[in-house]
Parts: sequence; C-alpha cells; structure tokens
Amino acid sequence: MKIISGGINSPKGFSSTGNFVGIKNKISKMDLAIVFSDAPAIAAAVFTTNIVKAAPVLWNQAIISDKGKVQAMIITSGNANACTGEIGIKHTEMIAEQASEVLKIKPKEVIIASTGVIGVPLPIEKICDGIKTNYLKLGNSELDAYLAAEAIMTTDTYSKQIAVEIEIDNKKVHIGGMAKGSGMIHPNMATMLSFITTDIDIDQALLQKLLNEIVIDTYNMISVDGDTSTNDQVTVLANGMAENKKITEEDGNYHIFKSAFLHVNTYLAKQIVHDGEGATKFITVNIEGAASKNDAQKLGKSIISSNLVKTAFFGEDANWGRIMTAMGYSGVEFDPELVSIHFTDNISTIDVLIKGKPIAFDEEIALEILKKKEIIVNITLQEGDASATAWGCDLSYDYVKINGDYRT
Amino acid sequence: MKIISGGINSPKGFSSTGNFVGIKNKISKMDLAIVFSDAPAIAAAVFTTNIVKAAPVLWNQAIISDKGKVQAMIITSGNANACTGEIGIKHTEMIAEQASEVLKIKPKEVIIASTGVIGVPLPIEKICDGIKTNYLKLGNSELDAYLAAEAIMTTDTYSKQIAVEIEIDNKKVHIGGMAKGSGMIHPNMATMLSFITTDIDIDQALLQKLLNEIVIDTYNMISVDGDTSTNDQVTVLANGMAENKKITEEDGNYHIFKSAFLHVNTYLAKQIVHDGEGATKFITVNIEGAASKNDAQKLGKSIISSNLVKTAFFGEDANWGRIMTAMGYSGVEFDPELVSIHFTDNISTIDVLIKGKPIAFDEEIALEILKKKEIIVNITLQEGDASATAWGCDLSYDYVKINGDYRT
Repeated sequence: MKIISGGINSPKGFSSTGNFVGIKNKISKMDLAIVFSDAPAIAAAVFTTNIVKAAPVLWNQAIISDKGKVQAMIITSGNANACTGEIGIKHTEMIAEQASEVLKIKPKEVIIASTGVIGVPLPIEKICDGIKTNYLKLGNSELDAYLAAEAIMTTDTYSKQIAVEIEIDNKKVHIGGMAKGSGMIHPNMATMLSFITTDIDIDQALLQKLLNEIVIDTYNMISVDGDTSTNDQVTVLANGMAENKKITEEDGNYHIFKSAFLHVNTYLAKQIVHDGEGATKFITVNIEGAASKNDAQKLGKSIISSNLVKTAFFGEDANWGRIMTAMGYSGVEFDPELVSIHFTDNISTIDVLIKGKPIAFDEEIALEILKKKEIIVNITLQEGDASATAWGCDLSYDYVKINGDYRT
Repeated sequence: MKIISGGINSPKGFSSTGNFVGIKNKISKMDLAIVFSDAPAIAAAVFTTNIVKAAPVLWNQAIISDKGKVQAMIITSGNANACTGEIGIKHTEMIAEQASEVLKIKPKEVIIASTGVIGVPLPIEKICDGIKTNYLKLGNSELDAYLAAEAIMTTDTYSKQIAVEIEIDNKKVHIGGMAKGSGMIHPNMATMLSFITTDIDIDQALLQKLLNEIVIDTYNMISVDGDTSTNDQVTVLANGMAENKKITEEDGNYHIFKSAFLHVNTYLAKQIVHDGEGATKFITVNIEGAASKNDAQKLGKSIISSNLVKTAFFGEDANWGRIMTAMGYSGVEFDPELVSIHFTDNISTIDVLIKGKPIAFDEEIALEILKKKEIIVNITLQEGDASATAWGCDLSYDYVKINGDYRT
C-alpha cells in the first residue's frame, strides 16, 4: 500500500469542486462540495443511530437500501437540514433535482449530506444556484479534492484528506477519502461526515459488509463529546474504473483492499479526534486481555468518553483512578484486582497500576509524558485475549467556549 | 408535613459530631463525621452500580444483605479508600473495630463511608485516633448535625441538610438527611453520599423496597458530569424511637411516610446538582407524554447528561436542536414530529418547537429566561401518558478548572 496525494480524486473517474454559495454568511468560507464519478458507482453507507435523522440522511438511506448506483455527492456545510420537517425533505429533493439536471443523471443517483445548525430551513435558492453555477468547475486535480474537503468543514481547523494506492490483479486500485469533524460555524453538535471514493470493482453487498465491519473499529471508536449527531454518515462510492476482476468474495484480493480501506478510515477517524473541538491532546487507549472484543471496545469507549478522564488529561494528571472508575461503569464485567495500567508517549513509560495494585510512580516522568500532545494509555485485563483501541481527546476550556460562548 | 431544623439529629435518639482528624491535610477542613443512634436501627441502603466498589461499600453491602441492625455511621472525607486492595478492606475493619470499642456496639453495627481521592491508602491511625478522641463530642443539637454535614464535604461549597416532621398514629415521626455532592479536595470523581435518619418504626424489607423505589426518581435523576462513582451510596437508618405502630405494609401511614421520605431525598438530590462542580445554572427537565416512565426517565437523563446541552445552557443559548439530538440518541423510540419543547423561568415562557415544527421565538425573552439561575425545560411527546423529571447543571469553565487544573 502506498500513500499518495489527490484525496477523493485519486481514484479514476472522480472529480470534485468546493465553492462558496453563502450558506455560512461568511465571505471566504466555502460551503458547497460537489463530487462526481464519470461512471455510475455502487454505494455503501452507514448512518447515525440517532432516532432524529436529518432529511439528507433519510434521502440517502432510501438510495442505499434500494442498492441504487450513485454518480454524485452534494455536501453543504453551515446548516444541517435536521429537525426541519417536510420543508427539509422537500429541500433535499430540490438539491437532488438540481444536481440531476446539470449533471445529466437521475435524482436518485445523488447522495446528499448537510452539516451545521439544526432546525433552520436551508437557504435552498442559494444552494440550487450554487450547483448550477459551480458544477462546471468540477476537476480531478489535487486542488479540486482539497477544495471539496475544505468546503465540508464547519468548526474544523483543517481539512482531512487521504489517498492510497494498492495493486490488485496487476491493476492499480485507489482509495481516497475526506472527512469533517466536530463543531459547527454556529455551534450545534459534533457532526461527523466521511466520504470515500474508490475505483475498485467490488460487489455492493460485500462493500457494505466491509464498511459495517470497519466502522466498528474506526469511527465508532472515537469520541469528542459523547453526543451522537443527527447527521453522521460515512459513504463509500466504488466506480469500478480500476478494471480489476470484480471482487465478489473474501479472497486474497479482498483482504488487500480491506487492509487499505481500514487504513483510510482509521486515518480519517483519528484526524477527526485530532481536530476535536477545543482538543489540546490526542489520547489513544489500548485495551488488552478482555473477555471479548465487544468488552474491550466498551471499556475503551467508556474511558475516552468520561469528562473526568478528559479533564484529567487536560490537567496533565496521571489520574488512573478516574480511568478505573470509567471502566467500572462501562457495563463490562471484569476483576478490578487483575487490571494493569500504564501511560506512555512512546519514549518514556510509567506503570501506575499493576494487577490492581497502585504503583508509586515518578511524578516528573509522568508529567513529561502527560505534557505531550499524544498520549497512549495501555490497559491490560486478565479476562481473555480480546483487544481494542479507542481514540479520544481532552476536555478543555475551549470546548466549553466553542459550544457555550458563541453569542459573544 | 412540616419542615423543621436539626438535620440528621431531628429524629429521636440520633446524635452526631463532625471533626478534624487530618485526612485532608488542611487546617479547618473537617473530615470525620460520627452518627450514633441510641437504639439499634434497621438499615436500608443502595450502592453504586460501578463494578469497581470502594472497600467501605463492600463492608456496608454485607451488613445490608445480612439485614443487620446498625447503631453508628463513620464517614470520612478526603480519601475514598477505593482501589486500595486488601489494605483498604483491612482499614475498613479497623474503623469498625475502633468505633465498636468506644461506642460499645458490635463492629458489624457500624456503617462506613469514605469519599475523596482514589488509590491511596487511608491515614488509618489518624482516623482511629480521631474516633477515639471525638466520640465523646456526640450531641443531638442542630449544631452537631451541621458539623457532621460539613465534615462529609469535599469540594462542595456548602453543606446539604434537611429535616421534616410528620404525624403517624398521633406520634410525631421525623426524617433527617444530609448529603454531599460532586467533587473532591484532590479532585477525582463525583461522589455522592446521602445519609437519612428517621425514628419511624418500619419493617426493614419495606424500607429497603421504598428506598429502591425512591432512588429511581431522585438520585438517579440527577447528573453533574455523567461519571458514576465507586463510592456512591444512600443509607437510611430507622431506629423506631417515634413509637408509632410499626409499619409493615403499604397502608395509609406508609404513604404519609413515603411522601415525606420522597421530599427529603428529592431535596438532597437537587441540592447536589445545585452545588455541582462549576455549575452556574440549575436545569429542570420535565418530560411528559412518554410511552413509559422508563422512557421518560431515559429521555430526561440523556438531555441533562449531554455536554452540548450543558454548554449551551452555560452560553445562555436556547439551543433546542441539541436537546432533540440528546433525545434522539437516548435509546428511546419516539416520533420527533410530535415533540414540543418550551423553556420557562416560571415567569416568562417561550415555545421553541411545537409538534416537531420550529417556532420563531423572541430572542430577548429567551435570553431573559436563560440568564436565570434556574431554568425549566418542558418537553411533551405524544407517545403515552408517562412523565419524569430530571435535574442537571451547566458545564462551565470552572468544571474544567476544578477537574483539570488542580496542580496549579
């Protein structure tokens, strides 16, 4: 696997553009991304589990459940089109129709995503006009991919992109991705959007199965603030233009693709946490020796989601008591007397708990580790041999500021 | 029901004291409370659901499951005696033995509670010496109750007490209570302790059943930061000295007692939130029209536990989108199109959502309500006729400061 440039445009046949249409009411803040595939692509997606689903999520769910082919994605930022009732549904249809008209595809071939403030109708004329005037700018350069990745941001401080190349049947296969993370220009909620493009030829059901599997280990293992958005989605388009022999089963070629696909999604998931609202530190929690993978994941998620753990990291405090506490209320059964915890920055390491016994550690080395921007917590249980990794960030004054103070 | 003074000493036969024994290493910070009942009392209690349980929790659980009578409670603050392994168990026994010796009761008649930092052994000599030198100060005055309530505090900014009087069979029956809330002198975790004394004569199983029932509507409906402590407990001692005809079934007298008991526990639970770490606002969320009480409670808890809802209240923002989002991921099934939300301070009211439709509201009136220290959110669904109330606080810079910044 080779890391390459080009983001979502690195797979053959994909082009994109990022534009300013005025949803955000701020000059120089892009808010419309258009992604196009020359060939109809199979699509796989996972959506928020929130019972309150934004209108575009409902639109996309219908396309995915019909196993319809997709040729375009329209993503707007600044307004989530969530809790907008019938008018929200209508606006989604209007976006699809506008894209359909100019791109000469069917409305049902358009995936739509919106992110931003909740409960306010979209400025639909601006968006439709924006699609009409900007679709001609679609291009397949690195810059065009960058523009799309920039246009989907809200309070993200940088755009998140990746592209990789693998070889399958002597054909070059590419996977590109872009994602946006936590925060909104008119702050509202953590909204995670991720879009993956690939030119691999693969069976739709197999791709959907792979995505479901991957999501559990990537996007579902991150937390910024514990709030599950109404708009979260990960969408993959595969247009088959790499001309590999179509992958229809979990064979060797599938596993080459899977490994690269996992890399792309892990990278984007971690980038979302890196750029978490107000985050000053990136925390990796490795759980080993759990009775099951599900247990390991629950323990990891519980730790990175705890406000008390998060504020302790912000305070650069090796507060393993809060970690034990978060494990204790995770819902997982385990023997606390067999738990070992150590902190590391990959240079120095401190043991703070060995088999349930607190270890007197060097406070200076602890502070040296905890002052770092990236901190690793390794936790070993003795319940079995399952493991998992979770990624989180600290909880800082700026998180409160971004989410509480936006009127000032 | 009459609100009276005297706290935990208002029921007949109870006395208490609060002392400084040096656990907290701070002059003038009390850290040992002793509560004594002249007559052996039946005891009921509920404990943390955290799988990591502090040594005193394990000690008390054994007493309660044996249905043993209790005559004293020893409560220390500054150190939680949690994650302390065998030495922690040993220390708990030593406290019980010391109390047993001076108070002339059995060790198993002593309920023990500790709150504070995790993973550090108790300064056991200081505590045993403290019991020996201070038990003689036990008194049944209002001041003695106040001293005990002060001695159980950690980062609480004020002590929390209540007492009520009711009449059963022409006998005066009293219920007193004290509680401590969220925070520690060496900040570690939200630790909730509540102690109720009463002179009613009541069957132990009935009292335990009542407590289990009451906890669901009181302590379980509050949240400061979503972290369930290793030390949480609510303990009730009933010594029967009111000489009422013993309550053995859910008759009229039981209901008189139940109503007063609910009042005492609701009051203490709400006080804990009022004094939540860094809290600047007290939020009441009323859910009506849910399919079941459990649904109503889950919805209310999900809202008051959301960091994004909490920061919005800190920012005085009528951000109902975050409320809908928190409801949406609560795990409860409901139709978002039938939800109505309004904010009130009991003077002004604004509708922000009526049957799923956002309502344009007067921003000035909204700000007038949201600037208040106590804000009520009323949410109506159309799924059934169950209701529940949850209480929470905002998430402020000071929460982050208290929990992250203690080294400075």
